[in-house]
Amino acid sequence: MKHTPADLLPEVFETLLDNEHLKIERIISKGHTSPESGWYDQAQHEWVILLEGAATITFDNGKESNLRKGDYLNIPAHVKHKVSWTDPDVESIWLAVFYGDIQ
Amino acid sequence: MKHTPADLLPEVFETLLDNEHLKIERIISKGHTSPESGWYDQAQHEWVILLEGAATITFDNGKESNLRKGDYLNIPAHVKHKVSWTDPDVESIWLAVFYGDIQ
Repeated sequence: MKHTPADLLPEVFETLLDNEHLKIERIISKGHTSPESGWYDQAQHEWVILLEGAATITFDNGKESNLRKGDYLNIPAHVKHKVSWTDPDVESIWLAVFYGDIQ
Repeated sequence: MKHTPADLLPEVFETLLDNEHLKIERIISKGHTSPESGWYDQAQHEWVILLEGAATITFDNGKESNLRKGDYLNIPAHVKHKVSWTDPDVESIWLAVFYGDIQ
């Protein structure tokens, strides 16, 4: 298994807003995929926009979304997905908005 | 009154998401201020982040927030505010998230 220094840095999660309506996070990835195993399966809806970099989100039905700077996606609650690729050469910056009732 | 070509272009508003929980807009300004007169006085809360450029938001209590790329602000419903300045030399790109019950 080959490591570059960037691989060794964890993803950076920063909460920008957290109240009864919304949670907004800024996430900085560089070559990371997540979660480490399995799928995200979230109780809330998530709207996500890629502010910098390049990334791929894969869904458990096999569909893939390739995102570039400015691309965005709405992921309804309990739609299983993962970040299957982020560009290893540049920082990818996400803004993720979690919303809707906890189910 | 001096006009540059950029002054003559309107602000660009693009709705990225609109559902029962949230409305998300991307707004591109270049030297614009808004609204043209008076204040924004909104029924919903607004969380806004400046993705590119530089801008100033002024509140009716006299306070000002100077925003640079990556800076963000939460504006509760009915807090009167306006965009009093945006950099005339570059595009300022906003992402605005409107949320909460209509009051």
